[in-house]
Amino acid sequence: MNTLEALFKPRSIAVVGASRQPGKIGYEILRNLKEYGYGGRIYPVNPQAKEILGLKAYPSISSIPDSVDMVVVSVPAHMVPDVIEEAGRKGVKVAVVISSGFKEIGRHDLEEEIVLRARKYGMRILGPNIFGVVYTPARINASFGPKDVIPGHIAFITQSGALGIALMGMTIVEKIGVSTIISIGNKSDIDDADLLEYLAGDEATKVILIYLEGVKDGKRFIEVARKVSTSKPVIVIKAGKTEVGAKAVASHTGSLAGNVLIYSTVFKQTGILEARSVEEAFDWARTFSYSPEYRDGDLVVVTNGGGAGVLVTDTLSMNGVQLSPPPETLVNALKPKLPGFASLGNPIDVTGMISNEGYVDAVMSALLDDKVGIVLAVYCQTAVTDPTIIAGELIKRIKELGGLPKPLIASFIGGEEVYWAIQKLNNAGIPAFPMPERAASSVAALINYSRIRKRLLRNA
Amino acid sequence: MNTLEALFKPRSIAVVGASRQPGKIGYEILRNLKEYGYGGRIYPVNPQAKEILGLKAYPSISSIPDSVDMVVVSVPAHMVPDVIEEAGRKGVKVAVVISSGFKEIGRHDLEEEIVLRARKYGMRILGPNIFGVVYTPARINASFGPKDVIPGHIAFITQSGALGIALMGMTIVEKIGVSTIISIGNKSDIDDADLLEYLAGDEATKVILIYLEGVKDGKRFIEVARKVSTSKPVIVIKAGKTEVGAKAVASHTGSLAGNVLIYSTVFKQTGILEARSVEEAFDWARTFSYSPEYRDGDLVVVTNGGGAGVLVTDTLSMNGVQLSPPPETLVNALKPKLPGFASLGNPIDVTGMISNEGYVDAVMSALLDDKVGIVLAVYCQTAVTDPTIIAGELIKRIKELGGLPKPLIASFIGGEEVYWAIQKLNNAGIPAFPMPERAASSVAALINYSRIRKRLLRNA
Repeated sequence: MNTLEALFKPRSIAVVGASRQPGKIGYEILRNLKEYGYGGRIYPVNPQAKEILGLKAYPSISSIPDSVDMVVVSVPAHMVPDVIEEAGRKGVKVAVVISSGFKEIGRHDLEEEIVLRARKYGMRILGPNIFGVVYTPARINASFGPKDVIPGHIAFITQSGALGIALMGMTIVEKIGVSTIISIGNKSDIDDADLLEYLAGDEATKVILIYLEGVKDGKRFIEVARKVSTSKPVIVIKAGKTEVGAKAVASHTGSLAGNVLIYSTVFKQTGILEARSVEEAFDWARTFSYSPEYRDGDLVVVTNGGGAGVLVTDTLSMNGVQLSPPPETLVNALKPKLPGFASLGNPIDVTGMISNEGYVDAVMSALLDDKVGIVLAVYCQTAVTDPTIIAGELIKRIKELGGLPKPLIASFIGGEEVYWAIQKLNNAGIPAFPMPERAASSVAALINYSRIRKRLLRNA
Repeated sequence: MNTLEALFKPRSIAVVGASRQPGKIGYEILRNLKEYGYGGRIYPVNPQAKEILGLKAYPSISSIPDSVDMVVVSVPAHMVPDVIEEAGRKGVKVAVVISSGFKEIGRHDLEEEIVLRARKYGMRILGPNIFGVVYTPARINASFGPKDVIPGHIAFITQSGALGIALMGMTIVEKIGVSTIISIGNKSDIDDADLLEYLAGDEATKVILIYLEGVKDGKRFIEVARKVSTSKPVIVIKAGKTEVGAKAVASHTGSLAGNVLIYSTVFKQTGILEARSVEEAFDWARTFSYSPEYRDGDLVVVTNGGGAGVLVTDTLSMNGVQLSPPPETLVNALKPKLPGFASLGNPIDVTGMISNEGYVDAVMSALLDDKVGIVLAVYCQTAVTDPTIIAGELIKRIKELGGLPKPLIASFIGGEEVYWAIQKLNNAGIPAFPMPERAASSVAALINYSRIRKRLLRNA
């Protein structure tokens, strides 16, 4: 077993510092691990307890009568080196060190100490100063974050603890499915490059999203990121995008946020997609995680609102994507079905007079045209249409096709019914957004990634 | 009575083309008008009906035995000129022409005709090709959009019909309160400048938000916008921000979107705040509509998540707002209360270990410091805090102060409880957002507007 594999697919996990007291980190982690449904063996380690949460407890790692692949460590910082030593001797492959009180408060010595001890045994360390790790295919939630993480295809790596745990909660309420959530904290050993390398081969992961303040080993990061970008999109939220932000990073984690321009250049060169905000990053990630790959073919926008069509045209253009006239085959197919004052340019404006069926027909015609490679469906709620009916009908027709043949991204704009329709579409794997710019930016991300990937493969 | 005043405060309204058939525009408008609670007299006009929705119907405008301030016209385009003529003769002050089939389909002649006829009588025209007008202080919903518009202080003017009506629905589901929603469509007579001028003096309106494709009379728009910006913020969503977007506008409404650069220069010169997206525009509008005016004094950011602090620092900086060290008085007040590893820079990082009380105390201390003029409270959901308790406590303490003494903008990041907390805060008039960048951009808008306003007043 690759040692990093032990982080995602351990056969057994020991929780050192497991607690009987609700609210304590050592209790929350054990409870999440047990209740989220991990199928392997769980060993609480606590010298004072016989049993915690119905699981037999052990006084020490060495007293566990079985091999242990992963330990989750939540004891005071000064006790961590001994735990690492004991885990190493036991043959543990990876230690997830939750405890804080290391580099982030100036204790570089203590941090070096745990890395040195782990190295002796070939053991890897995640952390310290983290909230844990989640891997949904193995039903592992070894974190003190929220429990009911939604399985999906986004890998989320976060250098920030408080923000990361908060965003973990956000994924649940926004119904964003993840393959894994990894808090990397001080990156004493395992860093972004290691995780990127591993996740490139992880079948559950379709897209990788990193909240990044700074990297440790720039050269290796560039090398790995470029390679991974040829197989999966990597999205980054870079904190410290401005000079003052970079200073704030330095005072926060002691990470060198580095020269702002250098990062942005590195992202471009390595094919990493840099999002302008947390919202945009998760919008893109959701889109990549739902969509079939965009390869080539025209982008066609179908809208029933001219104004919304203009807004997406602007956003696409600002993101480097220009619209060309729609394929003639599509124009010919739509012309007889649309009102005379409809506009058969791109966006195709089917007008606010269109019916539910008319709108669905136009979107499906675009989706099924051979020359079309990707469709952006922009819908404004009108008195003559019902967004939930439109969403339901689109979902049904796509199911009949055996799933999406190419990417379809939707923006539905309107009141309460629109919010239900958006949920419905997202649940069915069609990325949908309440704002036209968000949908257009996501479409541009798909197209831009396809261009980047081709470029990287050409230069590989 | 000023003729434009008749658009917002008519004593009586006739609906020409009122229908008995649900689903028809002439029915929906009458129903909205009646059910939303308009207190004046309502006269359905329909030659075939004796009564509609319990209201006595009249065969023509001239047969109404009373004066009529406003007519809402929803009859086929070719019949509109005669209706205008009759309304003029009756002494109607403003005609809201819902009907389409004018300039937007090439019938410039018909559009000129109705304007000419209205001019004869000193009557004003809103539209044609619009979904209507809403003015919440007078409980007027003379539109075929959704009914239950939420009263508030945002005036929303929209050149787009389908998008405008969809966004009208969005304001309801997002609980965004408006003073007025005005669909201006073809702007045959009443245009943005007229409305800006009127709304500058409207007590219910604190901020004006315009979805704009192009202006008719550039010189007058500039003149009026500059003047209005000295008393109220004007936010614009400009469709056609890019060259291709501008072309899309031309094919949509026939409006000259004009040179992209010219618009952006005009917005800067006149003090108009140009939002980058619909979401940002409404975020800003909500913030202005809730907040006391920002005059001067320091901006202080309080966060319990270092990463989130970096993200807002970046966003503020990208929007032209730099953070200075917090006032010494505040540092001295907070130091004894915060954990040793808290960072007393700006952002003030109270750390993820902070309790509910600790976080609320820090925010309130910032808010009450004399040197502080505006506070951005960034909160990441943690295991040791409860966002709904924090929101409730902030609201209570601010109520005890008799309301917000200065702007306080919040970003709460996390799971379901955070979404409840955000609702609670917004309901209490504290603008709150689920994403740090959205809150930071809104703070920057408040500060930037204050700078703009000072500059405009200096140069006036």
